[in-house]
Amino acid sequence: MQVEDLVTNNKIETEAWEALDKSILYYRGVPVGTLAAVDSTVESLNYDQCFIRDFVSSALLFLIQGRTDIVRNFLEETLKLQPKEKALDAYKPGRGLIPASFKVISENGEEFLEADFGEHAIARVTPVDSCLWWLILLRAYVVATKDISLAHQPEFQNGIRLIMELCLANRFDMYPTLLVPDGACMIDRRMGIYGHPLEIQVLFYAAMRAAGELLICQGNQDIVTAIDKRLPLLCGHIRQHYWIDINRLNAIYRFKGEEYGVKAVNLFNIYADSLPYYELDKWLPRKGGFLAGNVGPSQLDTRFFSLGNLMAIISDLATEEQSQAIMTLIEKRWDDLVGDMPMKICFPALENQDYKIVTGCDPKNIPWSYHNGGSWPVLMWMLAAAAVKTKRLNLAEKAIEVALFRLSGDEWPEYYDGKKGRLIGKQARKYQTWTIAGFLLAKELLKNPQHLPLVSFDKLPSELVSRACQLEFNSIDPVAS
Amino acid sequence: MQVEDLVTNNKIETEAWEALDKSILYYRGVPVGTLAAVDSTVESLNYDQCFIRDFVSSALLFLIQGRTDIVRNFLEETLKLQPKEKALDAYKPGRGLIPASFKVISENGEEFLEADFGEHAIARVTPVDSCLWWLILLRAYVVATKDISLAHQPEFQNGIRLIMELCLANRFDMYPTLLVPDGACMIDRRMGIYGHPLEIQVLFYAAMRAAGELLICQGNQDIVTAIDKRLPLLCGHIRQHYWIDINRLNAIYRFKGEEYGVKAVNLFNIYADSLPYYELDKWLPRKGGFLAGNVGPSQLDTRFFSLGNLMAIISDLATEEQSQAIMTLIEKRWDDLVGDMPMKICFPALENQDYKIVTGCDPKNIPWSYHNGGSWPVLMWMLAAAAVKTKRLNLAEKAIEVALFRLSGDEWPEYYDGKKGRLIGKQARKYQTWTIAGFLLAKELLKNPQHLPLVSFDKLPSELVSRACQLEFNSIDPVAS
Repeated sequence: MQVEDLVTNNKIETEAWEALDKSILYYRGVPVGTLAAVDSTVESLNYDQCFIRDFVSSALLFLIQGRTDIVRNFLEETLKLQPKEKALDAYKPGRGLIPASFKVISENGEEFLEADFGEHAIARVTPVDSCLWWLILLRAYVVATKDISLAHQPEFQNGIRLIMELCLANRFDMYPTLLVPDGACMIDRRMGIYGHPLEIQVLFYAAMRAAGELLICQGNQDIVTAIDKRLPLLCGHIRQHYWIDINRLNAIYRFKGEEYGVKAVNLFNIYADSLPYYELDKWLPRKGGFLAGNVGPSQLDTRFFSLGNLMAIISDLATEEQSQAIMTLIEKRWDDLVGDMPMKICFPALENQDYKIVTGCDPKNIPWSYHNGGSWPVLMWMLAAAAVKTKRLNLAEKAIEVALFRLSGDEWPEYYDGKKGRLIGKQARKYQTWTIAGFLLAKELLKNPQHLPLVSFDKLPSELVSRACQLEFNSIDPVAS
Repeated sequence: MQVEDLVTNNKIETEAWEALDKSILYYRGVPVGTLAAVDSTVESLNYDQCFIRDFVSSALLFLIQGRTDIVRNFLEETLKLQPKEKALDAYKPGRGLIPASFKVISENGEEFLEADFGEHAIARVTPVDSCLWWLILLRAYVVATKDISLAHQPEFQNGIRLIMELCLANRFDMYPTLLVPDGACMIDRRMGIYGHPLEIQVLFYAAMRAAGELLICQGNQDIVTAIDKRLPLLCGHIRQHYWIDINRLNAIYRFKGEEYGVKAVNLFNIYADSLPYYELDKWLPRKGGFLAGNVGPSQLDTRFFSLGNLMAIISDLATEEQSQAIMTLIEKRWDDLVGDMPMKICFPALENQDYKIVTGCDPKNIPWSYHNGGSWPVLMWMLAAAAVKTKRLNLAEKAIEVALFRLSGDEWPEYYDGKKGRLIGKQARKYQTWTIAGFLLAKELLKNPQHLPLVSFDKLPSELVSRACQLEFNSIDPVAS
């Protein structure tokens, strides 16, 4: 970097830190989170709230900075918003859920927090990811402070337990994965991610890993056992059934349909005609691969979803080989996945009839916009963390360089549109907090890779994996386990 | 009918009764169900089992005939197969579920029953409807025998309770409807009925009505209260949000998108472009209407599904006006919905890209075949029951006449294909038990309409409805409530 660039770089960073500070939300005098956006030019709608999933990147930065009180306050306040009673009432959020967002309301001079579990949001989607991110963040707090006492408090133990009970209980699921409605995560609109979408499965995995570290065994033996059982099953399931590379694609391509019985190889009864195999044949680099977006009966969604794939690397859900292959894919398909703004939320976009049927003609999700192939700067921190984990730092450095001069000039928009991400998003807010935080966090992670353990996990102990294999995966591909 | 026709008619009926008798499945010497099909010309695969949903039509006939022991045995044996323990194990079926099917296995001279919760079936779909049908059937048994003692036995009370707990517990649902994976009912393959499909909601409603009648309050107060709360909410939700007639279509067509907050009129954020409004504008008769196949965020599935609509009439989930409108639709669109074989499982079929995307290119569900616009004779009994309930007997009589001479000549196939249902189904078994039973049951219901209460319900007491309205539906359409 040239000297003048360096100066500009520092100026941009300073500006970003200031903007992050401005977004801090105070409640009864103490900081409890960050606002979604601080854009004075447009109506706030729900951007004046603190979204749980948005706050994660700010929170990790605060932990790195030693401003752990904000994160602690956030965790304490959101925990209070979690429904604790078993509800058999259709309009009450399920016990254990953490809201999508909350805001500070003033009434008669007193402040209180109002939670939103999706009931105020457009089309009322369920924010399943919130409780999973909450757990991941609680564990990051423990890692950062080296103080487990917060997590060991009875209310926290109860909160963790409720989240795990909610997610681990069997209902209509038939797999180790979690059955959710469409739009239950960062992509909170209809996008064909109903059933068993990758993002939720990866966050579920990381949340279970976190809960396993934080739960006191005594009194939680059933949950701890259930986690120990579920982790390797989920891990094996994702590594085997979600993985796509050229060899796996070829195997799927040659699958027989209509196999009946427990010995079926084509477990999900996938029909090759439903796959864009001719596109993937061209697109997949020889050594690249990725985890599919969604797998279910007769369904294999071959779109690449960044959050799920990057978090799979970070949480150690992907094997080392798979992690390298994902990074290779990003490197070799840079123009598609990063282009002029890191990075695509998913690729490719749904177009034409696919777009119409799968999104229900959502005008916000038109092809190559917003969730449907838009570019989201917040994903940069996950790219950086995955780069640190796989020792492919140059990829993240290159990405940050791409973003650096544009983000500040464009006033930190939420997302970008277009095939290469060169258009500021059609309805993007500016000064979007997680854009700012995502950028800063990516820089921090590259500067100080020792911060990675805030969000990363080590290998799952092998005895768990082998036990799981006995339970179910007698046919598991040895490469994938 | 001419004399010779009458003779043939009687001969066909006798033949059908004999075939039904032949399908009875014995276990340790007692009859416990009926086999799915008794077709000696093809490999049995899983057609040598007793499917819970298939057995319902046979069971109702047995109840009418006074052969109540078979039904009692069935209820007792299937209840034993229901998982009773809370499982946190990913591959165990959820507590409360009733299997999709069971079969008799002989080992060392001893017989036992093997349940299948979908784990042996193609692509492992969850049979959510089984536990709902089981409850509906238990209540039919009580109605037929006027003996509630079986249902009052502790094991049965526990079984009912577990089914209700499974279905009533909140998890990721945000509505009074039940969130299920794709293919969780009679249509047990991927067909775009993930989320909140009509069939499951209607069966859920009927099952709750049944449970409400059968549960002893003492010790079940929480469940009874939850049922009382949920019934009117579910009822109001379906009547309002699933209903489609020309006026409603026009309202939806003019909806604004992207409404934010609790007061949104377009609650589900439906975009008019996603609807085939120009087709429906032509297809909907002036006084006809129907319940949509599925409703969710940005999703309104305007296909007509027969089972859901007919069972909504029978169970009193549809208003009287709506019930008449559904029957009017069937009358006015006879060629589309009945044609040469009563009746279409859904209409219209998914074609071209819709078929590819929504079914995953399922070769069994090609357009106008099997679940995708095929014709299923078993639905005739529901048509007959709905006809009795709405006093539109002539419709059912006409349907039976259409079926009569073909079914026997074609050896009772499971389903028919083609736009008018003139082709015997591509992969249809012959001597399919529910085809036979569906035909006989339709005849019995028309001959003796006093049997209707076996499956029908009266109006929901109005105080429940009004309480629910206070809870949520302040904006409910007064016509629909």
